[in-house]
Amino acid sequence: MAETKIPRATAKRLPLYYRYLNILHDGGKKRISSNELADAIQVDSATIRRDFSYFGALGKRGYGYDVDSLLEFFKKILNQDQLTNVALIGVGNLGHALLNFNFHMDSNIRISAAFDVNPKNVNTIQGGVPIYPMDQLVKQLKDQQISVVILTVPGKVAQQVADQVAKAGVKGILNFTSVRLSVPKEIRVHNVDLTNELQTLIYFIDHYDKD
Amino acid sequence: MAETKIPRATAKRLPLYYRYLNILHDGGKKRISSNELADAIQVDSATIRRDFSYFGALGKRGYGYDVDSLLEFFKKILNQDQLTNVALIGVGNLGHALLNFNFHMDSNIRISAAFDVNPKNVNTIQGGVPIYPMDQLVKQLKDQQISVVILTVPGKVAQQVADQVAKAGVKGILNFTSVRLSVPKEIRVHNVDLTNELQTLIYFIDHYDKD
Repeated sequence: MAETKIPRATAKRLPLYYRYLNILHDGGKKRISSNELADAIQVDSATIRRDFSYFGALGKRGYGYDVDSLLEFFKKILNQDQLTNVALIGVGNLGHALLNFNFHMDSNIRISAAFDVNPKNVNTIQGGVPIYPMDQLVKQLKDQQISVVILTVPGKVAQQVADQVAKAGVKGILNFTSVRLSVPKEIRVHNVDLTNELQTLIYFIDHYDKD
Repeated sequence: MAETKIPRATAKRLPLYYRYLNILHDGGKKRISSNELADAIQVDSATIRRDFSYFGALGKRGYGYDVDSLLEFFKKILNQDQLTNVALIGVGNLGHALLNFNFHMDSNIRISAAFDVNPKNVNTIQGGVPIYPMDQLVKQLKDQQISVVILTVPGKVAQQVADQVAKAGVKGILNFTSVRLSVPKEIRVHNVDLTNELQTLIYFIDHYDKD
């Protein structure tokens, strides 16, 4: 597949398109217009058409989009035709929830290893996932060729763990701690800060009219 | 305080600034330059200066920003001088984790009520939060004047719960389900889809060089 450089805002919407197309597919729907899609996922139809246009002319005028071929297309783009194994580091409250959380069944992402310091957790299997002691972190990540980790450790050890993760050749960190990690430039960090999400929501409620 | 209409991208960074200023303040730091701030929170200094400029000239040339006054300023902007009570709906794995999750101590956000269908949870107190049965949802939200809810129910009941929440006069929903909710236009929904976050991270790793 040719590499297409698409805008980041578009890239961020791809999982959403993919999810919804799966739902349509499971419901037996064969085609959909950009307007229907827009209503369902609440992204305006002009944006959808522009997003799709980066991948070539996928729709036909007066027909709309073919659900199956669109789905196949996004599956490839999102690498969902192959399983991605990720590791979870830190089995506290949030980590435990994520171990037992069903990432969407259609996502083809699987937590295949977890790591923790707590002797009660170590060497157990939770939610089908083996939990290793922290001193096996670098070795296991390398052995299992895991390139993405979910970081749910306490903030005070986050940087230190990130340093180890970097040594293991990981390429991406989904960071649930509130620490802004300092990592080598080849590693991508996505921050998910739940307090920030709430604060931002409250700020918007207080300061903006709904559009 | 006068209302300032600031760009949404700026608004989204405010909790981050606020968090970091708290850390500086706790560490006894009195002033900081936009470059130091840029390094610490990994937002470029031009963006920081532009963001701050929406709130008037907060920094002084050759001195930088006064940490305490900046902190006070953001605290007011973010309504952090008053406690915001939020409700959590759905005490499954993720909901349970959020009940026990410490929203940043300095955030002044508190989950004051939770709701669930499971008889084992109902009428218990978890993480200091009382869990009410779902049939008390509308009444409790109204009685407690809660205007923000965290939605961690199973996807198949998400829309139905959102409809009840709307009846109770709630203004904001932090939606952890993968369902795109349909709500009256005066209600603001922020979606936090953890599978999407992972998929997007993996997509970026596969398709973009780090910048």
